[in-house]
Amino acid sequence: MANGDVPDIVRAAYAELAVTDLAASRRFWVDRLGFHVSAEDAGTLYLRGYEEFVHHSLILRAGAQPACARFALRVRTPEDIDRAERFHRDRGCRTVRMPAGATKAVGETVRVHDPFGFVVEYFHDIERVEKLHQRYDLRRGASINRLDHINLVTDDVRGFCEWYSALGFGLSETIEDDDGTLYATWMFRKQTVHDVASTQGTAPRLHHLAFAVPESHHILSLCDVLGATSEHDAIERGPGRHGVSNAFYLYLRDPDGHRVEIYTTDYFTGDPHHETLRWNVNDPRRRDFWGNPVVPRWYEEASRVLDLDGNMVPLRERRSDEQRITVGADGLGVSRS
Amino acid sequence: MANGDVPDIVRAAYAELAVTDLAASRRFWVDRLGFHVSAEDAGTLYLRGYEEFVHHSLILRAGAQPACARFALRVRTPEDIDRAERFHRDRGCRTVRMPAGATKAVGETVRVHDPFGFVVEYFHDIERVEKLHQRYDLRRGASINRLDHINLVTDDVRGFCEWYSALGFGLSETIEDDDGTLYATWMFRKQTVHDVASTQGTAPRLHHLAFAVPESHHILSLCDVLGATSEHDAIERGPGRHGVSNAFYLYLRDPDGHRVEIYTTDYFTGDPHHETLRWNVNDPRRRDFWGNPVVPRWYEEASRVLDLDGNMVPLRERRSDEQRITVGADGLGVSRS
Amino acid sequence: MANGDVPDIVRAAYAELAVTDLAASRRFWVDRLGFHVSAEDAGTLYLRGYEEFVHHSLILRAGAQPACARFALRVRTPEDIDRAERFHRDRGCRTVRMPAGATKAVGETVRVHDPFGFVVEYFHDIERVEKLHQRYDLRRGASINRLDHINLVTDDVRGFCEWYSALGFGLSETIEDDDGTLYATWMFRKQTVHDVASTQGTAPRLHHLAFAVPESHHILSLCDVLGATSEHDAIERGPGRHGVSNAFYLYLRDPDGHRVEIYTTDYFTGDPHHETLRWNVNDPRRRDFWGNPVVPRWYEEASRVLDLDGNMVPLRERRSDEQRITVGADGLGVSRS
Amino acid sequence: MANGDVPDIVRAAYAELAVTDLAASRRFWVDRLGFHVSAEDAGTLYLRGYEEFVHHSLILRAGAQPACARFALRVRTPEDIDRAERFHRDRGCRTVRMPAGATKAVGETVRVHDPFGFVVEYFHDIERVEKLHQRYDLRRGASINRLDHINLVTDDVRGFCEWYSALGFGLSETIEDDDGTLYATWMFRKQTVHDVASTQGTAPRLHHLAFAVPESHHILSLCDVLGATSEHDAIERGPGRHGVSNAFYLYLRDPDGHRVEIYTTDYFTGDPHHETLRWNVNDPRRRDFWGNPVVPRWYEEASRVLDLDGNMVPLRERRSDEQRITVGADGLGVSRS
Repeated sequence: MANGDVPDIVRAAYAELAVTDLAASRRFWVDRLGFHVSAEDAGTLYLRGYEEFVHHSLILRAGAQPACARFALRVRTPEDIDRAERFHRDRGCRTVRMPAGATKAVGETVRVHDPFGFVVEYFHDIERVEKLHQRYDLRRGASINRLDHINLVTDDVRGFCEWYSALGFGLSETIEDDDGTLYATWMFRKQTVHDVASTQGTAPRLHHLAFAVPESHHILSLCDVLGATSEHDAIERGPGRHGVSNAFYLYLRDPDGHRVEIYTTDYFTGDPHHETLRWNVNDPRRRDFWGNPVVPRWYEEASRVLDLDGNMVPLRERRSDEQRITVGADGLGVSRS
Repeated sequence: MANGDVPDIVRAAYAELAVTDLAASRRFWVDRLGFHVSAEDAGTLYLRGYEEFVHHSLILRAGAQPACARFALRVRTPEDIDRAERFHRDRGCRTVRMPAGATKAVGETVRVHDPFGFVVEYFHDIERVEKLHQRYDLRRGASINRLDHINLVTDDVRGFCEWYSALGFGLSETIEDDDGTLYATWMFRKQTVHDVASTQGTAPRLHHLAFAVPESHHILSLCDVLGATSEHDAIERGPGRHGVSNAFYLYLRDPDGHRVEIYTTDYFTGDPHHETLRWNVNDPRRRDFWGNPVVPRWYEEASRVLDLDGNMVPLRERRSDEQRITVGADGLGVSRS
Repeated sequence: MANGDVPDIVRAAYAELAVTDLAASRRFWVDRLGFHVSAEDAGTLYLRGYEEFVHHSLILRAGAQPACARFALRVRTPEDIDRAERFHRDRGCRTVRMPAGATKAVGETVRVHDPFGFVVEYFHDIERVEKLHQRYDLRRGASINRLDHINLVTDDVRGFCEWYSALGFGLSETIEDDDGTLYATWMFRKQTVHDVASTQGTAPRLHHLAFAVPESHHILSLCDVLGATSEHDAIERGPGRHGVSNAFYLYLRDPDGHRVEIYTTDYFTGDPHHETLRWNVNDPRRRDFWGNPVVPRWYEEASRVLDLDGNMVPLRERRSDEQRITVGADGLGVSRS
Repeated sequence: MANGDVPDIVRAAYAELAVTDLAASRRFWVDRLGFHVSAEDAGTLYLRGYEEFVHHSLILRAGAQPACARFALRVRTPEDIDRAERFHRDRGCRTVRMPAGATKAVGETVRVHDPFGFVVEYFHDIERVEKLHQRYDLRRGASINRLDHINLVTDDVRGFCEWYSALGFGLSETIEDDDGTLYATWMFRKQTVHDVASTQGTAPRLHHLAFAVPESHHILSLCDVLGATSEHDAIERGPGRHGVSNAFYLYLRDPDGHRVEIYTTDYFTGDPHHETLRWNVNDPRRRDFWGNPVVPRWYEEASRVLDLDGNMVPLRERRSDEQRITVGADGLGVSRS
């Protein structure tokens, strides 16, 4: 599918978050949301959903400040790690090879610092674990199935879209205006609406991680539990139906303010020439199909990210309207003017 | 259950709304919400839900201005109509006897103008109709089952509570503060959380009519349909879980601004000495158990009501804090100081 | 509502089952179905659902043989206990007065041995307990709300129907044939489809206890859990939609073979003159609205019952077709020929 | 993904059924199940689900006898049609090239008659149509989303598994016994549990087509509608949870006896080296995770299939136990002994 110069990326695979109180995080992610604990040690929790057959999709590591340390893309073959390294080096990005085990249960990887400020880890091997998808006796909370996607805040949505197009991602949906300004994009490798999304804003920041659950009632049940325990302040937005992606959603904030989306039922995008669905920025249904207003902090707040050395990446201001990039005339692809 | 001086009220039974464009109302109530049309003539629609085995629970009548013409309480025997008449006359209310057929499909009634400004119709007989509860092929929209309750805005919540207590209603839930001020009450005759509720404000106004549907997914589906047809502006608040009543809810506004609640699954209140659940006005979960904010217009806007002659009842201002009535020390009952 | 000679019965309130292995029963009823434990001692578990605001709706007591010890009907006032005693004594039934506390948390009662072979306990007072209906963090299994009804096997369905009609029960639904033979009846005091039901067969036996849960997905989830733990043999029939009652159902067998129905969403029957819905015994949708066949043991097997002294009541054979009683010509009521 | 000699197959894409009464079929598939009609002419209906963005996934064509005319696999590029032709010719299969338009809205194709008796059509181009996935106002019945898979009866499950492995399919699940006999296989190209499945029996026959819907309650609703219209005989099996695939299912028979599965929520299989889940033929949960028995005709009956000339393909008897093929020792692949 991808050509020889470009890594064949399978999907968004995991993320590592720095959290300041691991016990509080465990209570939120494990006891409330219902993640399965694959492993834990003094300072780290390795979590997965019930339809994930590999070691983890989320790493929570105790740290001094809340941040996203990195996110990871799984590639099809070991050689695709080399391709990922070359792809980024050729474009001036700093890269670091990591040996097997540098991340628990994961084979060798390359970590890259991309032009948008994010550390991305490419890997192929990860430990397979017992299939628990039918252990309904263990499922609880929102009955987490799997990591679905990673949503990033960037000050260059158009550049982001070009970059991931070059990496072989399809563009499923956009938010645009009549002048061609691109406000947000949804891009996929696996056959769903997205693996990575970008939203315009002060950058680089992680907007949210999204995890798929079976049905909408699992999301309502989670809200009920959070009301019952007076932890309803964790609910930031929703539940509701997204216009973009058509998924049923809920946004929560973890004890460090990291945002997580509980997400169910988007659609198949695996056909050849899957056509991009373009939403106008003035359509009130783009963010909420029922027209419910979005709370301002959902737009404003997001998690800081770390660089390859574990230092906080400085923020760049959101560009003014005049500075905004515009979509090219060439259809699905976008080109920098 | 009720003593000889007081009518034995069965439940909230129907309401009549004046609407300014009957075709638009039909589209909203019948095509979107999914009411069944029991009968219609030039200026009137008689509607019911699928688990109502009597002629109607909602009358929409073309009128010059939007208003609630009256709501009706069904009583257990024909004699209870007389008791209702005496109850109100003895307390200085104007009453009017109506012959059978004055309201289509309904037997003789008494209409009263209560001290809070509302016209209430007491009746016993109503035409039984074909049972359609299992006609799943006809159900659509939110799969409306039945009228559940009527929510009224009054400037005297405590007096309202006393009045309906005297009429034999139980008090299932309240919103209060630590000083004993009563902000809202939920009162029942049938074995659910309420038949009538009162909320404090500029009065008299109809806050909303509420109709029960089978399950929460029927409410989500209705939202999806309204998004699909770009009628999402009809959605005012929700969906969400109420703290009070524990029901899953959605509030809509019809083309005239009349508010309707789609409501599912409250609890059984039929035991003797059912204990009142008292919410503190500062508990953010009282109105939405998930802590989601209530849109201001849900508090501010409501439908005007008509008097016995069909004229708009003038509004009385909301009382100041000093004028607020306080709850008595006598438990479930409340007494005017 | 009921006249002075007849006890004013509120609803079916609790049942006591003798079980042979209390630990196994606890695992089934508490860990799997999700009952809340109100109290327990060496030989007894007192259980309730999350929308029950009184001490228990189910008592499990260790015994040598599986049986139903009794079921209980709650009455509106203490005087109704006396009325219940007189009602049964006048009709030749043995009765025993029990002091407060004879059943934990329950006030004084009368136990009667009715003509159909069942021990029924009438009580008014029962300890009120903390309201847990919104403790969604505690709910699990099928999210049990409350006891809904008790289904009994009798060899005299028509007599049973007359008896409970005399006790003031309404008749919501029947299964009959064209010759007027009555196969099963559903009878109510609270405003639902039933508190007690009767099915024709070798008697007296308890066919099942039924507990209401919020929505159909709670029933599907319970099935998934039982599959996950390889306890799927507990599933006897369903899930499915009943024709009679319109409820969504699942039948399980506990470790002693006691049958329990998990039941959701029947309809309101509280209107005056609620009309009986009569199903023909040849309509395949009467037992399952989707036409799915009923497993034979659902018809054949049921729990034995104890008498007032705790001895097993002998079984009477099912009557032959010629011996079957027929429905009277007098509409809702039935009269013994 | 696939090597140069093998067509790169995207997914199972459509099937054509011969039906004897197109009006009756329209009522079943369109009015009841809720398919969208993309096009129709005198003798043919072209149907799709609401998350299909191409012209059709099901063709119903009037014919003298019920049969499956063919099913189609979509390939990634036009060149893959040539590869599919070569693959089958090289293995002695008869193939026929069809020009664009031979199937309405579809580009050029090759039809092959495979060694198992089925006609398979390989195509790349198909007309893109308006995206209707958010037209919730049009959705009805079971809210059909898309064709998920095709289940075939073959007398050589092991050979079938080898053949599709050679075509690049992954093997997600199997039913086997301790002696290595393979009873059924589930094989995928898209990132779900399957595109094609095989079940052992008299062959070649189409066991069923399966269509994905959003959530389990859509399946329950369809059952309710079929009960309401007394068309419940169309329900053959379910609803229930599959052990294999973990999906929630319902099987129906159309007016000609063609079997259709309504299916929701299986799991992601797109990771490299996705591990096969092997069920023992004696595990009662393999076919129904809740242990409910499978009706015999679900095993016994299936649709006949047509050859390239439109003639009925003769049936071959089911092999005896001694003739059964056994799984090779080489893991996922199987080899003919």
